[in-house]
Amino acid sequence: MKHFSLLASTALALMLTSHLAIAATELPALMPLPSTISQGDGSFPLTASFTVAYATPPDERLTAAVNRTLTRMQYSSGVALAHAAVVPSAGSLTISVSGPDAAVQGVDDDESYHLAVTAQGIQLASTTVVGALHGLETLLQLATFRDGHAIIPAVTIDDQPRFRWRGLMIDVARHFEPVEVIKRNLDAMALVKLNVFHWHLSDDQGFRAESKRFPKLTAEGSHGEFYTQEEMREVVAYAHARGIRVVPEFDMPGHTLSWQVAYPDIGSTSGPFSLPDRFGIHDEALDPTRESTYKFLDALVGEMAAIFPDAYFHIGGDESNGNAWRSNPKIVAFMKSHDIKDTDALQVYFNSKLLKIVAKHGKHMIGWDEVFTPGLPKDIVIESWRGQESLSKAAAQGYQGILAAPYYLDGMATAEKHFLADPVPADTQLTPEQQKSVLGGEVAMWAEQINPQTIDSRIWPRAAAIAERFWSPQSDRDVESMYTRLWPVSLQLETVGLTHISGPQKMLRNLAQSQQPADLDTLASVLEPVSFHERYQGQHTDARTPLDRLVDAVVPDPPSRFEMSRSVNEALADGAAAGSAREVLRQRFQSWVDAAATLNTLISLSPRMADAAPRVQQLAQLGQTGLQALKALPGKTAPAGWREQQTQIINEAAKSVALTRFTFLLSLQKLVDAAGGAIQ
Amino acid sequence: MKHFSLLASTALALMLTSHLAIAATELPALMPLPSTISQGDGSFPLTASFTVAYATPPDERLTAAVNRTLTRMQYSSGVALAHAAVVPSAGSLTISVSGPDAAVQGVDDDESYHLAVTAQGIQLASTTVVGALHGLETLLQLATFRDGHAIIPAVTIDDQPRFRWRGLMIDVARHFEPVEVIKRNLDAMALVKLNVFHWHLSDDQGFRAESKRFPKLTAEGSHGEFYTQEEMREVVAYAHARGIRVVPEFDMPGHTLSWQVAYPDIGSTSGPFSLPDRFGIHDEALDPTRESTYKFLDALVGEMAAIFPDAYFHIGGDESNGNAWRSNPKIVAFMKSHDIKDTDALQVYFNSKLLKIVAKHGKHMIGWDEVFTPGLPKDIVIESWRGQESLSKAAAQGYQGILAAPYYLDGMATAEKHFLADPVPADTQLTPEQQKSVLGGEVAMWAEQINPQTIDSRIWPRAAAIAERFWSPQSDRDVESMYTRLWPVSLQLETVGLTHISGPQKMLRNLAQSQQPADLDTLASVLEPVSFHERYQGQHTDARTPLDRLVDAVVPDPPSRFEMSRSVNEALADGAAAGSAREVLRQRFQSWVDAAATLNTLISLSPRMADAAPRVQQLAQLGQTGLQALKALPGKTAPAGWREQQTQIINEAAKSVALTRFTFLLSLQKLVDAAGGAIQ
Repeated sequence: MKHFSLLASTALALMLTSHLAIAATELPALMPLPSTISQGDGSFPLTASFTVAYATPPDERLTAAVNRTLTRMQYSSGVALAHAAVVPSAGSLTISVSGPDAAVQGVDDDESYHLAVTAQGIQLASTTVVGALHGLETLLQLATFRDGHAIIPAVTIDDQPRFRWRGLMIDVARHFEPVEVIKRNLDAMALVKLNVFHWHLSDDQGFRAESKRFPKLTAEGSHGEFYTQEEMREVVAYAHARGIRVVPEFDMPGHTLSWQVAYPDIGSTSGPFSLPDRFGIHDEALDPTRESTYKFLDALVGEMAAIFPDAYFHIGGDESNGNAWRSNPKIVAFMKSHDIKDTDALQVYFNSKLLKIVAKHGKHMIGWDEVFTPGLPKDIVIESWRGQESLSKAAAQGYQGILAAPYYLDGMATAEKHFLADPVPADTQLTPEQQKSVLGGEVAMWAEQINPQTIDSRIWPRAAAIAERFWSPQSDRDVESMYTRLWPVSLQLETVGLTHISGPQKMLRNLAQSQQPADLDTLASVLEPVSFHERYQGQHTDARTPLDRLVDAVVPDPPSRFEMSRSVNEALADGAAAGSAREVLRQRFQSWVDAAATLNTLISLSPRMADAAPRVQQLAQLGQTGLQALKALPGKTAPAGWREQQTQIINEAAKSVALTRFTFLLSLQKLVDAAGGAIQ
Repeated sequence: MKHFSLLASTALALMLTSHLAIAATELPALMPLPSTISQGDGSFPLTASFTVAYATPPDERLTAAVNRTLTRMQYSSGVALAHAAVVPSAGSLTISVSGPDAAVQGVDDDESYHLAVTAQGIQLASTTVVGALHGLETLLQLATFRDGHAIIPAVTIDDQPRFRWRGLMIDVARHFEPVEVIKRNLDAMALVKLNVFHWHLSDDQGFRAESKRFPKLTAEGSHGEFYTQEEMREVVAYAHARGIRVVPEFDMPGHTLSWQVAYPDIGSTSGPFSLPDRFGIHDEALDPTRESTYKFLDALVGEMAAIFPDAYFHIGGDESNGNAWRSNPKIVAFMKSHDIKDTDALQVYFNSKLLKIVAKHGKHMIGWDEVFTPGLPKDIVIESWRGQESLSKAAAQGYQGILAAPYYLDGMATAEKHFLADPVPADTQLTPEQQKSVLGGEVAMWAEQINPQTIDSRIWPRAAAIAERFWSPQSDRDVESMYTRLWPVSLQLETVGLTHISGPQKMLRNLAQSQQPADLDTLASVLEPVSFHERYQGQHTDARTPLDRLVDAVVPDPPSRFEMSRSVNEALADGAAAGSAREVLRQRFQSWVDAAATLNTLISLSPRMADAAPRVQQLAQLGQTGLQALKALPGKTAPAGWREQQTQIINEAAKSVALTRFTFLLSLQKLVDAAGGAIQ
């Protein structure tokens, strides 16, 4: 047995062109990386005579998961496994789950599993079904081909998560997402072992959860786009079947304009209100001074608490700016008479009363940073959108916390940046005891600029890199290893139904009105969207803005950034790979030059792409820059002034155009610097 | 006003690379072609101030359709239209529907519409809502770009279908298709004006419709894959909203093994039975001699008739081989005592009794060819899987009929072949009166070799060409025009949710384990699946066979066949285009040669593609053949024997390998013949 350290696992095959086969000494891409893994000799062959044995009586959830696993493994291996026989003992796969699971999955549940594959068989053991589900996902990632046969390599894995709370938040208020979008994202979450779906169900722009007590919430506050109670229960069951808890969020007292459209009496200002198209912070807030407001909330929280069995209930609490309260004389008078010094203090008053309601219905309260105020009891959980420091402060005072800030996907940051951000970094000032208060983290997908067509490509595959941060050991910080595994995992993610690759491709076909828009692909592959903030400034986006531009068809941190960076590094190194890396680059640069001619025509025809015209010029120009750099490189023979000139071109190209930015400019600059090194 | 005859419309722009812009004198691709169309001057601009006026009070179905239309038009135009204001009069689009629709859409409903677009506005008028829905689809197809602006070209269209019954049958028994698959296919049907969804809900391999009277039908006869009654009602409503009737089929007395698994007593042979994995004809059949069978059918048909409001009820009736009846002494005795001379006559007996049951529940009976027997009343409808002749025979005797045989998609024939097959060909022997008995036709998608991942690419875009056959005038037989419009319509079809392009691409990524499997794309783009029958012979396919091979990732009649044919024709003509056509061909041939090297490695690694290895050799070889032909072409300088040698290579490549065939061999042979013309 060879023992793999975490660092050695970075030796996993670097095959961006195809990840099809692995050498006998390599393991397929696992993500998140297991805490410990050691590789054995040989492998277990996948054949049509595959069997499953349950060493302990399986529950319905486990057998359903095993059936899904076999169907997926059949698809990836091409071997008929989906109807594998269940045998009393000594199956190809033998599963034992030692303890019964609670009916409702808890934050402290044991999620560990032990997976041992030898040439003779596969053993999967865990304490809980959730642990077994994680093990099945690992098993799926292990399946590969060797010598033209489908196999599972011999391996022993003992695995458990670093953090208990590994969430994905989806905002379905700013743009609605139908149930099937939620379901495919739950499947994707399970694949990378995320375990909390945080469902942001209400905001100013829409109330998305059917209430039978208050039917106007959706009848008047949702434009008809909402989940029925049956659908919400279905999502909870679907998530539970995949080892995922569902935490609903009803954001209050701010972000409640949609509530007030339906029930103006609970608001602080007088209506009538209408659902806003505008995003951003609205002044409207619930009236915290009237008992009728709490009566309403008691009924609503009670109704929703019955639909969502999880122990936690998210009350939002963010971005309540106090304007509506300050402008209402009755509320001002209430504050004076109750000795409430400002609107922050009034929100503390509101939170204290809300906390009692949430607790009455058997739930722990979670809220965003703003709910973290002295005086609230220690069983609330703070979700930090402000960041590391805010979270540490809460943890130092004994509050449990979840980190969200560095995992905001609409910032359009790289997978690398998200991956390296740690809920408890190595240099944390927290004591080991305080560190335990950090439950984990949450990926946050806000929905101002996404819709069902684009959401998957905004979440995935970047969320897989974050999932690894939440699960794998702190020492796992090798970015090259992460990217090397991210692309094959990205392909796995589409087999469970995600459209993060096919969706953007479809949109490019639609933009180009061509079944094979090769040149537009060339351009799109090296562009990514600007951040939420830049887009918001650059283009007025509200709820009615069509999300159908080039910026919507390109994806954040596409493979081109990493590929170019690797190629440039290889091209500049004196290794054997330098020659072929330079040829790869040359072809790439040439393809940019070649694509530009067609693209000029294409883009001029379409009002949806007209603003991208400068990008086409730049692509050709930057391609020329690259070609010149490669020519100059061997002897560093670039003429005087060339480097400065090219740098200027690159700097110009770094500006936002058509709400996009190029992915490769840093690498190209490196190449230019190297090629122009001899000059001065 | 220029008046376009049907033939002149074949001048529609031939732009396979991109269909983005049209010249002022061209119209965007319409499919099916309207019966009459005349083009005006100028166009109506699409802007964010678009409004809709209803000249007659719209019903819920119409307003929902208009909203969907605006959302789709917003997506294709990039102009914010989805929330267009409804104004009392003089809208950008003014719609009038003169008559009320019946609650249930009928086979004789008026589906005509009048659409007039001028620079001042758009008028849509029809007798029924269904007519208006068709007009809205035409309007969507008309939207395009001119001079960088989104517009609708000025046009006057008076349109109506040639046939009343334009169906798509989907078999959900052999492989189950979830509701969302059905829904997206209904959207696609509406786009090309198909109006009957024939739902083949039961067969030997599965009973897919929940019965509350006979719950074991799905509990034991469906492997858990079935539609609830709520889901079936949802599908009926979804179809109705799109102008589509739903005709359920419960195939009997044969093809009922799944029924007998659940209720063995209704069978002719003794059980126990189990759901078969094997396809093909099974001997089992209902027992037509016992009254209890008819009592069962009465209850079942009654229950289903209440779910499906359509006037027609399909009872299948095909491929009952009589073996089960002949082997049951009681049935043989019954035949003797009732003077029933053979099993065909026994089926007539069964059908007569069944007909009464179907009629009792208010439905007309439809059945496959086999139900066409003397003595049955004239209000039954014959669906012909046997073909033209069988249909004509029935029509000549006064029976109404629907043609299905030439539209069997699993034959993997070209769109051209399907398009040219006519339910009432120009040389028909039927009198005009008899011709009226031919209600129309149905595209048939049998499901032995498809699943939810592949179904769309098997149906579409070929079904769009057939939809044109059913809708447009008989004189519309220009194959080049049809293909020229088929590809842009194919792109429209994916905007309503079809995965016919993205699905195969995803599968190729999965096969190659690469995000950009360019070389595999090159191979796949010139391959298509062999027919159902060839596949059945070449590979034992049953219900458990994974459908995840190269054959499943390639599509029938991909663009390469038509593109190659056109390029070769141009290259061989003495026109100005010959030079560029030869260059296009040269690049294509070279890409085959180049791809082969990578593909050899890729294919050898994967057991799912191993059988395609010969195809890679052939691709390189045929690429060389093409390159040599192009070189020899100008002076026809190919050496002696070359033509014979290449012809042999082409013939060898025509054989089925890996369940696939090449799309371009006829065109390549043509090129070879031309290049080798001088040689003896």
